[in-house]
Amino acid sequence: MSVNPNAKIEITALDWVPDFARGYVRDLRPRWACEEIGLDYAEHLISTLHRPADHFLFQPWGQVPVLNDGGIRLFESGAILLHLAEKDARLMPHDAQARASTLAWVFAAYSSIEPMLLELGNVDLFAKDEEWATLRRPSLIDFIHGRLGRLEDALGDKDYLVGEFNVADIAMATVLKGGIEAGLIAEHARLQAYLDRCLARPAYRRALDAQLESFNEEAGPPA
Amino acid sequence: MSVNPNAKIEITALDWVPDFARGYVRDLRPRWACEEIGLDYAEHLISTLHRPADHFLFQPWGQVPVLNDGGIRLFESGAILLHLAEKDARLMPHDAQARASTLAWVFAAYSSIEPMLLELGNVDLFAKDEEWATLRRPSLIDFIHGRLGRLEDALGDKDYLVGEFNVADIAMATVLKGGIEAGLIAEHARLQAYLDRCLARPAYRRALDAQLESFNEEAGPPA
Repeated sequence: MSVNPNAKIEITALDWVPDFARGYVRDLRPRWACEEIGLDYAEHLISTLHRPADHFLFQPWGQVPVLNDGGIRLFESGAILLHLAEKDARLMPHDAQARASTLAWVFAAYSSIEPMLLELGNVDLFAKDEEWATLRRPSLIDFIHGRLGRLEDALGDKDYLVGEFNVADIAMATVLKGGIEAGLIAEHARLQAYLDRCLARPAYRRALDAQLESFNEEAGPPA
Repeated sequence: MSVNPNAKIEITALDWVPDFARGYVRDLRPRWACEEIGLDYAEHLISTLHRPADHFLFQPWGQVPVLNDGGIRLFESGAILLHLAEKDARLMPHDAQARASTLAWVFAAYSSIEPMLLELGNVDLFAKDEEWATLRRPSLIDFIHGRLGRLEDALGDKDYLVGEFNVADIAMATVLKGGIEAGLIAEHARLQAYLDRCLARPAYRRALDAQLESFNEEAGPPA
């Protein structure tokens, strides 16, 4: 367990989310990175229903996570992961090509895969009763499968994106996880195996448990 | 002019695109970064209509740019910008908070702003005759304006995102540029001024000219 109220690193997270979002809120990502390298972190839990006004100073869209590393603050999961990765070669390799590839895959996860899965979240969840969502779905699914197929080709028979597990796999696995429920990953056997491999890591399990434990049932509407 | 066939840095770009895409293809981003620091680069032009099969080894989705830095190859505009930025403090400041903020804004541009503008490109261009696109447009526009308003708040009265111009502004300006035609930026006066300030830079003009000059009219369909 790496949650430590006195740690120098602080991760901002939410005090409550609906059931469907549990295990998906993005503070999971830096929690996982910290767990992989045994770096203690404190939690800074903010109200989901009443975001504090000053939170927008550190995260322009009011989202989480924000990382506070001894007074240095930054937002965006990808940036936070790269910031943490610089602390340990287990997250960011020193070899020049491996480092470049790791940078590329972190961006690929958050710029080239996640946006389409988020739009599918709009279609299947937030806008599910709107006509455009029903009409949009097939072309979006086709596009996502195209991307996932190419990702699977790029992974090839490697265990991890850059050979050894590193921060790129934290980025990609937390994104791909969002495609499980729609049945998107299961159609790509090697991606499914890759995702299973990542999510079986003890550090991931600890990060997930810590996120789930941080929710306060009384901070949200009654079930 | 920094295009130099003998340069160590090579940027992969397309040999032709339709008129509407000229000035928007993403090799503009590393070209601009190179121009800001006077770093010569060679162009590696690939066929738009017949992407070479081996290109997918370096860019999983067949897109551009790919950067080849003396044999080190990487893809994703954001990753390439960060790789280039490490070469010069004019692109990546040394101060720890400024560096962290720069990382955050590069990711924000490509993960939190660009995806919505790309979806608007689907709506207004590629799917413009489909019913879902017409129905989807209003909520997408609302969402984009929400994001841009928050971005404008975060910019405040600063000239650039992190104070001095750096790689974060290359990332953000090349993204915001994609929202000009839909009239999205003009509604946010400080963002418009920021974008104008970025695009007035001589390095941007040189990068744009170089991209426009690289297209071969005979490589695409006749007008």
